[in-house]
Amino acid sequence: MAKPVAARGFARDRVVDAALELFAQRGIRGTSIQMIAARLGVTKASVYYQFQSKDDIVLAVAKPLIDDIRHIQRVAAMLPSHQARRDVALSGLIDLAIRHRQVANVIYGDPCMRQLMNNRPALRETIDGFTGLLFGPESTETEVVAMTLLTAGIYGCTADVRLDGISDDALRAKLQEVVRRFASTV
Amino acid sequence: MAKPVAARGFARDRVVDAALELFAQRGIRGTSIQMIAARLGVTKASVYYQFQSKDDIVLAVAKPLIDDIRHIQRVAAMLPSHQARRDVALSGLIDLAIRHRQVANVIYGDPCMRQLMNNRPALRETIDGFTGLLFGPESTETEVVAMTLLTAGIYGCTADVRLDGISDDALRAKLQEVVRRFASTV
Repeated sequence: MAKPVAARGFARDRVVDAALELFAQRGIRGTSIQMIAARLGVTKASVYYQFQSKDDIVLAVAKPLIDDIRHIQRVAAMLPSHQARRDVALSGLIDLAIRHRQVANVIYGDPCMRQLMNNRPALRETIDGFTGLLFGPESTETEVVAMTLLTAGIYGCTADVRLDGISDDALRAKLQEVVRRFASTV
Repeated sequence: MAKPVAARGFARDRVVDAALELFAQRGIRGTSIQMIAARLGVTKASVYYQFQSKDDIVLAVAKPLIDDIRHIQRVAAMLPSHQARRDVALSGLIDLAIRHRQVANVIYGDPCMRQLMNNRPALRETIDGFTGLLFGPESTETEVVAMTLLTAGIYGCTADVRLDGISDDALRAKLQEVVRRFASTV
């Protein structure tokens, strides 16, 4: 029994939105398909009509962020030096962490997301490719620690309540400035 | 019915250790007193004999880290300039994040911990005092963003699986070097 495409898209979006809210409140592990269904006032079966598994819902939540990461990689691939690729990757990371602030808070560092990545070669490749842009071809221990610190720091800033008073635009500009200064020392 | 002090101390430590393991696996919110009791093979009542509430267990888990933060504050208070106090605070933060790696991973940024802090004025004061050491008396937006990034980045490095191959000593030394370089630009 086929549904019209628009309705299906709408229903999928509603599941993704409800899942994101629950992930933010209870973590990915603490959220079940049943809870997502209950929040939408529908049955578990109707959620399963849209998504095969909870993993598929997590991937749909993460998709806008993953798409941005792939876009950054395509742009960076055209640049001639590691330094230039790294700068584009860092700047792009700040943009996407602010643009997808809630999604970034939910998925960055989440053990479920990490596990999921290990089971999805295409996703693993995307994340490893992005890490490669940051770490560079030689990837000294200093570079690895510095870039891991900046990555965790950028995501962490989007989640820190002490920065709630700063608008997205102001935080983006400040992060760009601070990260540029930091990265120039590595 | 008083128990000998040693036994009580031992039982408390076992609860704290079991709670830390469960917090690491399931998050603080995802862990109940019942789960802690089950892991120890005891009744909920015997856990409640040691701790009045789950909040008290969380505080006991966080205690070594909080004690270190208070120690850093005492040392920093003796220094004459903001710059010097900030450097001691950053350096001390790296030391404690590595020393209490698992505890740091569990409590940093956890929404339960944040809520708990708001209900415990002494704890709130400790964290705010430490933040004050980092941000400085003027606390420009740049300083606030830079120090929030470094704090999140330091804690994030202790949790990142990509750094699992680096020993605690090597990671501590690298973080000290990188953070010193970064902080000198702010």
